[in-house]
Amino acid sequence: MGYRLSDLAARLGVPWEGPGDPEILGVAGFEGAGPGDLTFAVDRQRETGLADVVAAAVVVRPGVPCPLPALRADDPRAVFTQVLALFAPPLSRVFPDGRHPTAVVDPTAELAPDVALGPYCVVGPGARIGAGCRLGPHVVVEADAALGRRCLLHAASQVRERCVLGDEVILHGGAVVGSDGFGFHPGRAGLVKIPQIGIVVLGARVEVGANTCIDRATTGVTSVGEGTKLDNQVQIAHNVTVGRHCAISAQSGISGSCRLGDGVTLGGQVGMADHLELGDGVKVAAKSGITRDVPAGQTIFGYPAIEFRKGFKVVALTHRLPELFQRLAKVEAALGRRREGKDD
Amino acid sequence: MGYRLSDLAARLGVPWEGPGDPEILGVAGFEGAGPGDLTFAVDRQRETGLADVVAAAVVVRPGVPCPLPALRADDPRAVFTQVLALFAPPLSRVFPDGRHPTAVVDPTAELAPDVALGPYCVVGPGARIGAGCRLGPHVVVEADAALGRRCLLHAASQVRERCVLGDEVILHGGAVVGSDGFGFHPGRAGLVKIPQIGIVVLGARVEVGANTCIDRATTGVTSVGEGTKLDNQVQIAHNVTVGRHCAISAQSGISGSCRLGDGVTLGGQVGMADHLELGDGVKVAAKSGITRDVPAGQTIFGYPAIEFRKGFKVVALTHRLPELFQRLAKVEAALGRRREGKDD
Amino acid sequence: MGYRLSDLAARLGVPWEGPGDPEILGVAGFEGAGPGDLTFAVDRQRETGLADVVAAAVVVRPGVPCPLPALRADDPRAVFTQVLALFAPPLSRVFPDGRHPTAVVDPTAELAPDVALGPYCVVGPGARIGAGCRLGPHVVVEADAALGRRCLLHAASQVRERCVLGDEVILHGGAVVGSDGFGFHPGRAGLVKIPQIGIVVLGARVEVGANTCIDRATTGVTSVGEGTKLDNQVQIAHNVTVGRHCAISAQSGISGSCRLGDGVTLGGQVGMADHLELGDGVKVAAKSGITRDVPAGQTIFGYPAIEFRKGFKVVALTHRLPELFQRLAKVEAALGRRREGKDD
Repeated sequence: MGYRLSDLAARLGVPWEGPGDPEILGVAGFEGAGPGDLTFAVDRQRETGLADVVAAAVVVRPGVPCPLPALRADDPRAVFTQVLALFAPPLSRVFPDGRHPTAVVDPTAELAPDVALGPYCVVGPGARIGAGCRLGPHVVVEADAALGRRCLLHAASQVRERCVLGDEVILHGGAVVGSDGFGFHPGRAGLVKIPQIGIVVLGARVEVGANTCIDRATTGVTSVGEGTKLDNQVQIAHNVTVGRHCAISAQSGISGSCRLGDGVTLGGQVGMADHLELGDGVKVAAKSGITRDVPAGQTIFGYPAIEFRKGFKVVALTHRLPELFQRLAKVEAALGRRREGKDD
Repeated sequence: MGYRLSDLAARLGVPWEGPGDPEILGVAGFEGAGPGDLTFAVDRQRETGLADVVAAAVVVRPGVPCPLPALRADDPRAVFTQVLALFAPPLSRVFPDGRHPTAVVDPTAELAPDVALGPYCVVGPGARIGAGCRLGPHVVVEADAALGRRCLLHAASQVRERCVLGDEVILHGGAVVGSDGFGFHPGRAGLVKIPQIGIVVLGARVEVGANTCIDRATTGVTSVGEGTKLDNQVQIAHNVTVGRHCAISAQSGISGSCRLGDGVTLGGQVGMADHLELGDGVKVAAKSGITRDVPAGQTIFGYPAIEFRKGFKVVALTHRLPELFQRLAKVEAALGRRREGKDD
Repeated sequence: MGYRLSDLAARLGVPWEGPGDPEILGVAGFEGAGPGDLTFAVDRQRETGLADVVAAAVVVRPGVPCPLPALRADDPRAVFTQVLALFAPPLSRVFPDGRHPTAVVDPTAELAPDVALGPYCVVGPGARIGAGCRLGPHVVVEADAALGRRCLLHAASQVRERCVLGDEVILHGGAVVGSDGFGFHPGRAGLVKIPQIGIVVLGARVEVGANTCIDRATTGVTSVGEGTKLDNQVQIAHNVTVGRHCAISAQSGISGSCRLGDGVTLGGQVGMADHLELGDGVKVAAKSGITRDVPAGQTIFGYPAIEFRKGFKVVALTHRLPELFQRLAKVEAALGRRREGKDD
């Protein structure tokens, strides 16, 4: 069921130390650990609390005094991440090998021989699915869509027609890749739908959260770069370009034709007006509303979002508005008294 | 089709009065009622408008003069709620009894004999489903998940592997329970996925809105307490603990590892930074952004959210900023004139 | 594969001009166009950049000098929209004609003979589906629901029991029409669910974005008027009335019993408290929070949302708060010096 600490150390290539060589039965965060668990200490506070933690062993930096059995690593979180993978249930428990007999695959679709299809998957005509992909139950891959290798598509996620996924893309439950962009033309009898005939292209190792939506381009491509991670309920509008290695937190929305550079970070519930550009490495605090281009490297906050420290200061001063009004009233009163010759 | 008023009174155990004993054909709110409807009056305004309402009968407090046939109850809304249940179409119209032949149930899953499964349900290996549960079409219950008794899972809702639902849990369409938490570790080649191997546990009578997402814990449990109601498109991140009898309105998002006490109320589109704690009974106004712990019983507002009345005052004063700038400019002008000896 | 420019002109009934009569192989926006594409110029900037654009031809207003082959139209965008429709892949590629053998249709449902049903569609008892409707894979139409003619329901969208869709309604992937309203009654043992027995009615040509949710009414009707477009991840609560030809951008939420007039526009991530009324033609800037009724024709901004220009000014002045505090401090210092007889 578990692993000896020495065994884990060998698998991960890190030094270990006793007392003893405990069996590790599970993994847990520092606060939630129990007697059979391996946990990890990443900061000063936890490193000094090691005497009180209940755990079988701990991943901790070299040199930190540790009364418990330990794995030693310069980056305890990275090692802990590897251990988590060892304790994860096998993929085949959730995505069994082979094609479930109920999967409907169009005869013109091209699937690598080892693709795993869950019950009721639907793969449309002309679709291509690369080696090692696993599709959960009720996944839909529409006509002429293409998936790279080793993609993981969770239950009821969908890839609409002609969209393209790179290698090792993960879609979580209910994610929609390739919905129509929100484009309408005012006509005599109301809004006329502008056909959305472009596609979506997701780079390698993109992860798309549950119920997140990525709209196809009107013409051309909506793209999300390699390694970028989208949280749940994110909205990416038509013709947006998101760079590589970005992290977009839950419930954020990016309007049409925006361009995000590489390594951009958006907090939760951020909104972004259309046709804007964020440079590489821009960081945006949660709930901000972005209304203009932002140069590379800036951290911004607020609505309209401005440079973070200034935005933060503005908000702090906002909370002092009651004081401000009182002080101004006093000044006015003092001036008024003087004007009437009644100055003290 | 309908019920005599006297019959309703007997079923609900409340007194009734004429004139007559009308047949009640439907139920409607005060403003939308028609001649065959039972409606209800909950406040002074509606109680004084009873002469004008078109309805067959009304639920109203004892002692309130009423020209219409009436049911009398101290809490008219509670009685009306019971009447609504009588007029709801039978569950079996939408969730027919029995297991639809297209439902795919793993042979190692354990289902109570009376579980109703809609077309194309998928129940994975090791899953357990309690007595009286009804699953709509396309519901997915993954490997080793467990449902209590009398749960109602609407179309295309999903429970991912190993997650646990208490008795009488309701999932609305497209709800995702157990998606991966948004956890990544910066590595040399970009963001490295931290395996999310924990679970989600929902207490008894939890209701989860349409397309709402609840992420599984990294390790351990994301939990939502007994009786708590989540509206549509809510996002609950990994390792969050929500207490009992909370009400979280639509499009609100709770970041990782937050802890909410019992009886907490969040308005719509509220956001909450990670690792925060809200005490019992905290109320948060819509669109607020919570950035620090909040003690029990407080009502808060704004971003960053502060005590409600102060937050409200700050906003009101914000709207007076144009006036403030004008007043300050006058004061400066007056001082300037004096300085130049030109004071009036 | 493509169309001669002269052929397009004939089909669209607009004049064309050379040099030559190029074959149009595709369509693209002004910035993304390539050598075989038709593009369009809608504004001064693009009209003056025609010499530099790479394209086979362009749609441009009459009289504008154009070195490229051109279609001439007073409204180039409208003509371009028509061209897009010509280049869209045929509907039958994604929604094949006929009923897929795996579609489960209750024998009491009434479907027009030409209705197209994708794999694993589920149509409940008493449901009615009009001529020309196309349902993608995994679409669910529950008991007694009714669809007009030529509706297009994308993969995994769902219409719950008794809800009604007009002609030519489009539902995108994962959209939920008819989920329960968020209505609870405080009882002794916690929140008691108020049965939601009303329905949703969508007018003709309503479009509902991916993962958008529209709650059924408690009693009566939640309605969305003819021609109104809802973007992705929009939330419409119970008993809301949205007028005709409105455009509601992504991630906006409308609380219970609100009434929106015709031609209302909401930006993204707008929120609206319950029981409010927006008059015809009201425009609301992105991320606003609406807390009171708004008369017809107004444009509003902020939270609480106020008249747009005032709201905009307030925000601009907020950013000058640091300056304001400094100026006030100077005034106070000057007054203090005088008081002490040290005035300059």
